[in-house]
Amino acid sequence: MAIASKGSNRKRATNRVEDVRVLRVGHRPGRDPRLTTHVALTARALGARRLYLHPADPAIAERLAAVRERWGGEFEVEGIQDYRTLLRTWPGTIVHLTMYGLPLDRVIRRIRRDRPVLVVVGGAKVPSALYQMASFNVAVGHEPHSEVAALALTLDRLMGVPGPGPRSGARQWIRPRAHGKSLAERKDAP
Amino acid sequence: MAIASKGSNRKRATNRVEDVRVLRVGHRPGRDPRLTTHVALTARALGARRLYLHPADPAIAERLAAVRERWGGEFEVEGIQDYRTLLRTWPGTIVHLTMYGLPLDRVIRRIRRDRPVLVVVGGAKVPSALYQMASFNVAVGHEPHSEVAALALTLDRLMGVPGPGPRSGARQWIRPRAHGKSLAERKDAP
Repeated sequence: MAIASKGSNRKRATNRVEDVRVLRVGHRPGRDPRLTTHVALTARALGARRLYLHPADPAIAERLAAVRERWGGEFEVEGIQDYRTLLRTWPGTIVHLTMYGLPLDRVIRRIRRDRPVLVVVGGAKVPSALYQMASFNVAVGHEPHSEVAALALTLDRLMGVPGPGPRSGARQWIRPRAHGKSLAERKDAP
Repeated sequence: MAIASKGSNRKRATNRVEDVRVLRVGHRPGRDPRLTTHVALTARALGARRLYLHPADPAIAERLAAVRERWGGEFEVEGIQDYRTLLRTWPGTIVHLTMYGLPLDRVIRRIRRDRPVLVVVGGAKVPSALYQMASFNVAVGHEPHSEVAALALTLDRLMGVPGPGPRSGARQWIRPRAHGKSLAERKDAP
């Protein structure tokens, strides 16, 4: 039996990559705070450990720190000025998301081999050097869509979608409901 | 052997839902054109047939028409004023994406049964009636993240990620490359 391609739950759990981080390049502070916030929230919600943000944007780092304060987990936003050094010294696989790349589900097995995994999400203009520095240029569909969508599907293939329940240090978490809303809160929160 | 849960390629193809449409409620024209554009592009790129947009926003409809003109396919944006009637008269399943709902991968098999599928993406404030009108309230992760990410993963579970190659009527399409960019163009385009 072949190793997981897209993978069922069981297969995916077996091959789950523990340490995935995201690099967002070409962020424009002030211009697209909402979109980069969506990138950051998606990275966090789907289990990435960290977002490296180029250039730094304290407003987004603070926003995500506030989310962590309530919802727990270890996710952090780290502003960086020099992303080329991060890429050059990365010890595992670098996955650059671009609609010109190879189909995600065709390369996912190879991506999983060498860890940790850094997923690079470009902004409006991506320097062509990125295509060379990446271990894999990967497309999620081969048409213009959203870097948030591409990131979500890539993280899903690497780690799966987290189930319900509190994260470490959470003050609140959701109890899934067929209808309506149920939010649990830790009473002894500091 | 059980029917697909998250499903391998083969299983997913078997259970692929042909007609999936998206309803975006609570769009704020002028305020969040980029985010709704990402919702629309994601819906299109992942195979949805149509985006119903409430309220209507001609700028986004034109933007997506221009994408279709170049990249082909049948996707359209249809502005609507009365989304409750759309929900009340919908002939298949209505999936409302909310972080308070049931885990996507726990209900996906039931969602696939009754077609066509309408996926509802809320905006900032969602009327509570939506929770009642939906066949399923579904969460993709149970933490705040992005409606674009949630939509992408839901469409993936319903239809899979489209492979490369031209769509019907396309003037251009991408040839996947390990490095660099390759765009094919139809020479005899009208």
